[in-house]
Amino acid sequence: MAQFEIEKFIQKEIQKFLPAHLISEAYQYAMFPAGKLFRPNLALAIYRDLNPEQYEQAINLKNKDILYFASALECHHSYSLVHDDLPSMDNDDFRRGKESTHKKFGEWKAILIGDGLLNISYEFLTKIKNSDPHRHLLLMKIFARSMGPKGLIHGQTLDLSHEMTYSFANTLLTHKFKTGRLIQMASIGACLLATTKDLKREKLIWKFSENIGILFQLLDDLSELNDAKLSAHELDVNPWLKFPEETYHETLKRLESYLNLYSKLKLTYTHEMLKNYFKKMNDGLKEHQSTVVTHLQKNVQLIPVMNLLDRIDSTH
Amino acid sequence: MAQFEIEKFIQKEIQKFLPAHLISEAYQYAMFPAGKLFRPNLALAIYRDLNPEQYEQAINLKNKDILYFASALECHHSYSLVHDDLPSMDNDDFRRGKESTHKKFGEWKAILIGDGLLNISYEFLTKIKNSDPHRHLLLMKIFARSMGPKGLIHGQTLDLSHEMTYSFANTLLTHKFKTGRLIQMASIGACLLATTKDLKREKLIWKFSENIGILFQLLDDLSELNDAKLSAHELDVNPWLKFPEETYHETLKRLESYLNLYSKLKLTYTHEMLKNYFKKMNDGLKEHQSTVVTHLQKNVQLIPVMNLLDRIDSTH
Repeated sequence: MAQFEIEKFIQKEIQKFLPAHLISEAYQYAMFPAGKLFRPNLALAIYRDLNPEQYEQAINLKNKDILYFASALECHHSYSLVHDDLPSMDNDDFRRGKESTHKKFGEWKAILIGDGLLNISYEFLTKIKNSDPHRHLLLMKIFARSMGPKGLIHGQTLDLSHEMTYSFANTLLTHKFKTGRLIQMASIGACLLATTKDLKREKLIWKFSENIGILFQLLDDLSELNDAKLSAHELDVNPWLKFPEETYHETLKRLESYLNLYSKLKLTYTHEMLKNYFKKMNDGLKEHQSTVVTHLQKNVQLIPVMNLLDRIDSTH
Repeated sequence: MAQFEIEKFIQKEIQKFLPAHLISEAYQYAMFPAGKLFRPNLALAIYRDLNPEQYEQAINLKNKDILYFASALECHHSYSLVHDDLPSMDNDDFRRGKESTHKKFGEWKAILIGDGLLNISYEFLTKIKNSDPHRHLLLMKIFARSMGPKGLIHGQTLDLSHEMTYSFANTLLTHKFKTGRLIQMASIGACLLATTKDLKREKLIWKFSENIGILFQLLDDLSELNDAKLSAHELDVNPWLKFPEETYHETLKRLESYLNLYSKLKLTYTHEMLKNYFKKMNDGLKEHQSTVVTHLQKNVQLIPVMNLLDRIDSTH
């Protein structure tokens, strides 16, 4: 069966939240074409693993809860990118191979589009029709907390205040909040919608996905080194250059921990999806191996990282 | 009985959402000391009118639903002000007699604080424990819709794109969304939390509070003319100067409509609170009467507006 096209679903649904107005185009621009859709697809994969029948209903649009939830994740992710790119934040002129939203539409529109997508993410959550209202409310509560000043925004604050670069511990903390929380939210939300009680499993998945979130970011940081020429900002904050040995050992540790955990959790589709993602990372690293190595200090080796990624790829 | 001090409640509760971090101070700065607290107090007044017993429970902190809701309104209002003041938006260096948040803490912090308060407003909503989960969900659904790209943010877009100044109809539309929606939300949310069914009354209150929202803004625009010297921006967008006759007649019409409606709705405390607010407006206008008049065109008179405000003041 072909993968469910969550992007098309979001694109169709989001229209309902937008005014029939020129700025609607700018909202679309900020979100589409989508990126890797890592968070929505992770949510869908976990949901499928935990409740395959309900997943079938979802992709046949008979129970859209997980689709609304996945849409909320992607809108929230997009808002954070639009605001992150602003001149006073990361000041990025490009995003996903095209001009960033403020470059294309101006700064005030980018701020409002970010705010708009943030509100839309919550509106998507209110469209969930879960038969257990307490579970539904719990999902929204965890969402708000994980995205708020003690969650994702805490990570952005650590990043922009440069506290991230003060120590490796701070880098990890930043990754845990800025990248990790939304990925954890994808996992735990899928879990809350797929099952009814099993809180023990939810705790395990919360930890498991924290590991994924941090790993996701550390490998993303490593892939930045695929480019021969790094920006001043990259040279300044990339943990592979800033805290090379700690970053290296942390990544190895977390890859091993993934290998130990994934089979225990019996999340077949989720593992399949993550394997795919790891493989793409690894392919990129292999392709640019010589370039990456020139950036790395001599006591940091690329081979052991690639070997672990290969090991993940050979699992079932 | 002294008025319930909603500001203290919010100040205490909001701590729970903030990281133990320097930026916590900046969140506090953006919100406190609070402004008029018009929206939370309106919600409390309507709640009191519709369910006095439950209101007693609320101010004795035995049922905090309306307090959490009022807190959500104020956080949301504050986020919108912090973002509105940004250089690429209204570019205001001062707010409530002190430096605006970005002036004091820098632009990226102001953006994140706005985003943070926006998320907190939804987290406050999830703290509501309403015994009717469907009503609770409905409240959140209306909130997200009223604040999103088709609500408050639509109003901001009309304002910043200058479409507001293209016609009087556009000005009204801007006021309806930018100022009105949050005021309507205050009313309808209080209504949803206070009562159990009575949807007919809710529709009436939705219309009634739309009128209040627009009136609130038109009188606020008029009070801007209390100053002898107006900024270039004020001269450019104030509807009393831009569309004098239409604004004048619209204001008279809406004040009369208030006088006709308030008694039918039997909202005693709400009327008391609004009377108070109108009186303050009127006192300001009386004090600066000669200044205001110099700004007004000759076919626009201040006296009839003040007379209607006096009439509201003499009602019970």
